[in-house]
Order: sequence, then C-alpha cells, then structure tokens
Amino acid sequence: MRSILEYDTVALDDENSALVIIDQTLLPGEIKLLHLTEQSAIWEAIQTLRVRGAPAIGVAAAIGLYLAVKPSAAETAEAFLDELHAAADYLNSARPTAVNLAWALKRMETAARRRADDTVPALKEVLHRECLAIWEEDIDVCRRLGENGLTLVKPGDGLLTHCNAGQLATVRYGTATAPMYLGHQRGYGFHVYCDETRPLLQGARLTSFELSSAGIDTTLICDNMAPSLMKRGAIQAVFVGCDRVAANGDAANKIGTLGVAIAAKRFGIPFYVVAPLSTIDLATPTGGEIVIEERSGDEIREMWYEKPMAPAGVKTWNPAFDVTDNDLITAIVTEWCVARPPYTESLKEMFQKKEAAQP
Amino acid sequence: MRSILEYDTVALDDENSALVIIDQTLLPGEIKLLHLTEQSAIWEAIQTLRVRGAPAIGVAAAIGLYLAVKPSAAETAEAFLDELHAAADYLNSARPTAVNLAWALKRMETAARRRADDTVPALKEVLHRECLAIWEEDIDVCRRLGENGLTLVKPGDGLLTHCNAGQLATVRYGTATAPMYLGHQRGYGFHVYCDETRPLLQGARLTSFELSSAGIDTTLICDNMAPSLMKRGAIQAVFVGCDRVAANGDAANKIGTLGVAIAAKRFGIPFYVVAPLSTIDLATPTGGEIVIEERSGDEIREMWYEKPMAPAGVKTWNPAFDVTDNDLITAIVTEWCVARPPYTESLKEMFQKKEAAQP
Repeated sequence: MRSILEYDTVALDDENSALVIIDQTLLPGEIKLLHLTEQSAIWEAIQTLRVRGAPAIGVAAAIGLYLAVKPSAAETAEAFLDELHAAADYLNSARPTAVNLAWALKRMETAARRRADDTVPALKEVLHRECLAIWEEDIDVCRRLGENGLTLVKPGDGLLTHCNAGQLATVRYGTATAPMYLGHQRGYGFHVYCDETRPLLQGARLTSFELSSAGIDTTLICDNMAPSLMKRGAIQAVFVGCDRVAANGDAANKIGTLGVAIAAKRFGIPFYVVAPLSTIDLATPTGGEIVIEERSGDEIREMWYEKPMAPAGVKTWNPAFDVTDNDLITAIVTEWCVARPPYTESLKEMFQKKEAAQP
Repeated sequence: MRSILEYDTVALDDENSALVIIDQTLLPGEIKLLHLTEQSAIWEAIQTLRVRGAPAIGVAAAIGLYLAVKPSAAETAEAFLDELHAAADYLNSARPTAVNLAWALKRMETAARRRADDTVPALKEVLHRECLAIWEEDIDVCRRLGENGLTLVKPGDGLLTHCNAGQLATVRYGTATAPMYLGHQRGYGFHVYCDETRPLLQGARLTSFELSSAGIDTTLICDNMAPSLMKRGAIQAVFVGCDRVAANGDAANKIGTLGVAIAAKRFGIPFYVVAPLSTIDLATPTGGEIVIEERSGDEIREMWYEKPMAPAGVKTWNPAFDVTDNDLITAIVTEWCVARPPYTESLKEMFQKKEAAQP
C-alpha cells in the first residue's frame, strides 16, 4: 500500500485544470486519487463526503471555485463576478452547514471583488493565487502545529489519539497527527495508539488507516481500553484535535475525549489539545456555553444502519461531542505557540502577540 | 414483550424432567424458553452459549447432571455412580474451561459419593436436592447482593452499569443488576444507563435488553459517553460486577471498568463492585497478580467477524479485562455485607465472621 504522506488530501492540478482528492469513501482500503474537472463532480465529491474534514472541505471548495470560472468567456469584470457568485452558490449548496465551505468561498469572492476594476484574466489570476494561498496556509498551519507539538515528546514515545484529527481532514499532516507525521519523518519511532471512537469509528476507519499507511507503528484499541494502556505505562502523551476551544481553555471535541483526559490525569500523562487558531473562540467564555449536538440513536443501535446490535427501539443518548475541562489539559498547541494554563491569560496574550506581529 | 422477571434464566421442570433455559442466542430479541430433556441437547445448549454466564452455566450443569441419571436403571450404587461420573464427564466437555461448570458437576458427584452406601433411588433424591440447592443458593446470593446494594441508593437515582452482570448470567436478579431489579419491584423508579461494552457489546445486546424488558427506564450509551453523563449529574451511583477481587480489593472486571471508575472518582460518584463471595480471592494479594486474557484483534477489526470496520490486518490490542485499583472503589457489595476500605482488613474480617457464623 502507498503511504498517505506521498499525497495531499486535496490539491490543484493546474496543467489539467483538475481538483485532485483522495476518495475517502473508499477508506479504509486503498488510497485512490480522483481528478475532478467538472463542477458537478466537485459538488458531488463534497456532498457525498469523498472529501471531508472542515479544513479539507474549505480548500477543496476554493480550488473548485477557481476551476469553475477558469474557462469563463465573460468579457467584463462585472459579468465575471456574477458567474463567480453563481458558481460559489452552487458549491455552497453541496453542504450548506459546513462552516469552512462557506468561509473559503466567501474569501475567494472577496479577493476577486476587491479587484473589480481589473481585467477578467487578472481576476482569474487573483483567484488562482487565492486558492493556492488557502491551500498553502492549511499546510503551513498543520506543519507549525506539528513542530510545536514535537517539542513536547521524545523519540520512542507512546502516543494516544482519539477520533480523526488527521491528514484526511486537512491537506497534509493533520492537526493532532501532525507531530506524529513530522516525528516519523525524522525517525522518532513513535508507537501510536488510536481509539476506535464509537459510534462512528473514525479512529478505526480513518486514523489507524492513515497512520499505518505512512509506516507509523499503529495499534487500534477500543475506547474503553485506553485507561489500561495508560496504567501499563504504554502512553507518554495524548494528542487530540478539537472543534472549539473556549476562552478559558475548555475544549469541545469528539465524544470520548473527556474520558481520555480524566484517565490521563489519573496516570500523570500529559494531555495536549492541538488547536489551530481558527478553532479558538475567545467570544465563548467557557465550555458550558458550547451547545453539544445530539445525534440519532441508530448510530449506537445499528452498525452503519445495517445490522442491529441492540434491542430495537431501546432508548439511547448519543452526544456527538463532549467538553474537556481546562484543568485536565496540560497545554493547548497552536500554530503560534504552546499555550499553558491559566488559559484565560495565555490564549488572550497569544492573540495579542499575533496581532502585534502582523504587518 | 414479556419481562425477564417473569422467568428464571435456568430452572428445573421436575414434572417433565426438563432443563428450562432462556435461549440467549436469540437475544436481543424475544425471550424464548427451551425445554431440554435430552443430554445431547443440554450439552449443545452449554456449548453454543444458549446458556452463558458463570453462575448460570453451573446451575444448568447441575440440573443437567441430575436429569442425566434420573432415568438410570442401575441396580447398585456403584454402577449408578459410574453412570453419574460418565455423564459429568460428558457435560464438562461442553466447555472444559468454564470453572463453574466443573465446580457444579464436582459438587453433585461429591454429594452422591458421600452417600455411596445408599440405594439408587436415595442417591437420585440426593442429586435432586443438591441441584435444587445449587439453584436456590444462586437465587439467594443474588437477592442478598440486591438487598445490600439497595441500601446504597435512593428512589429516582440514575445508575450506570458496564457489561452484563445481569440476570442472564445467573438464575434470577443478576449481581450488579440485582439492586436495580429489587428496587424496580419496590417502585424506586431508577434511571439505568448501560455502557454498550466494546468489543463484544454485552451491554447493548444483553443488559439493555434484560433491563428494558423488565420495564426499567433504560438508556444505552457508548462506553466513551459515560464521563459526559456523569458530568451532567445524571449518575448517582455505578454498579459493576467482577470476575475476581484480590485480597486488597483490586477488582478485575470486563475491559472498560477501570475507565468508568476513574471518571466516577473525578465526579464524586460512588463506584460499587458487586461481588459474590465466590469471586473474592484472598489468595491473590493484589490486582497486579491477576493475569489478563488478551483476545483476537478480529473482535475489534470486524463486526462479529462479518464486516470490516478497520484496515485489514491493522495491529490491535484487545485485553478482555482490566483491574480497577482499590482506591477507586467506594465499597464492595457481597451477599454477606457492604465492605468498605481498607479492603485488606474488611474482606478478611468478613470471611472470619462468616466462618464464625456457620454451624
């Protein structure tokens, strides 16, 4: 099998005017690249989760939007911008609730509108550069998350992760997995343990697949086995991704993260949340304000809606996320720094320094 | 659907010379009683897990052995005891590693051999009484576990359990579920939450089934959701069964129990191990001496060996049990008392008092 590190999850093939993605509906199994040139095919790929993960969807949409208007025959900037807007609307309809999808399309449109006095070829070049900038920024953020995370571990360490905050959700490296990939390329010889992550098994289907495909020593466990692994001394650090970090450092992530953090604390194992700045929300004071999505009990009662594994109709509770309290989090790793408690101060400071550093 | 409380998991139908069991291979689904009269059918029921759970297997074997020799035409005690031994050997071969199976058969044989001077009809009556004694003792132990456990909770409480230490593993009431059933019969109105218990899903398939069939308000969750439930204040006590308790109170039970105990401690929720005296092993000083069985990774990689849910051949770690450290256990509930820390003293004392109380 080829390694996932040989590919980007999402890329632009300029020569053939194609969006290139790893088809995630075929996982776990082979790594198959799709070269998508038609708008309808790109729409379908987003809609059917052939490309998934918030950052990856955003990058795919940006590239898709550029490709949509690249062949435009519009003669005026105004006509071109109308075409651009229609194409963005169309792509956005593939997954209307995906925040990164709307964000990337909006950013592309704004870049073009700022140059509304230019020629159509110049606008096309603006969009070309903008989608590549979005793509490069995603890689850059993940690489910097990896570099910062790597300062927290040493060669030979056993690392645990939960759910998929991996390359398959980004262009390259992933977030929680970035230190693992960078360390692997530098011969760190990590032993990585993946929680399978019930009910949807992203850890089994995606994370254990992408890490083992890259040649990393990877072991899959059920979620409830992590405390035993920690007790045996097999884990030196936990890295998880996150969906949102509140101003006080409370972190919402895939259901089960809280239990991992509690167990890590019991056994004195550092617990790191890997959080791009885009996930840190200083407007949310604490995790208590984060609304947790509750999903259909069929995800628990049935295996992929096929085979029952519980009594028909038994009552369930199926929250998609949980909130890990800030006292359980050893550090929050961002692309900017490694933030330590108390987070109310360190996160605010980080944003201040970042703004001060910008030209 | 009929309630499991209307039936015993295992019983003797004297009139029809039949072993009556709930066919557990049909669960979760209907409660179907099997009336087994042929030795080959009883052997098959044990071998194919139609009856499962250590105590239930023991009781089924005792009743099965009695039924095997009930029609014997032997004219001497010696010939009868030979037949008895052959029948015991045959039943034992159904699951040679099941400790309770061998224990119950041995107890039956010993009871008969002690009366080797008696007539064949008298020996048959000895065996009849002995298998009913084993059956009654199992019910009695579970009822007393339930009574003792019930002193630790109050009406309306939310209770969490892990795996299946339920009626389906015993004749009636189960062990960890005994306080739930007894409380239910007395109108306590518990809200019971069941961990599904990966990888084999005993909580989903068995526990959530038997509790909800009895009319108890039952909610099924994935193992990794329990800490969130606790954080929300939904759980007032945890009851789990156990496979072995060491002299210092460390308790081996189904994988995942340790994580539940750690989370319960974090949220100040009492964690109770329900342990018949037969599971308390003063000869094992600590949990460190308990060997943990590791099972095939296919249990994690595939859903019931049917559909892959992880990359083929990905490395796994699949321990069947874990050991919960004694400092995480609020009390150990036995049929004799509620033992509190320090367990090295309280468990020893309990056995001393019990021995002193015996005639």
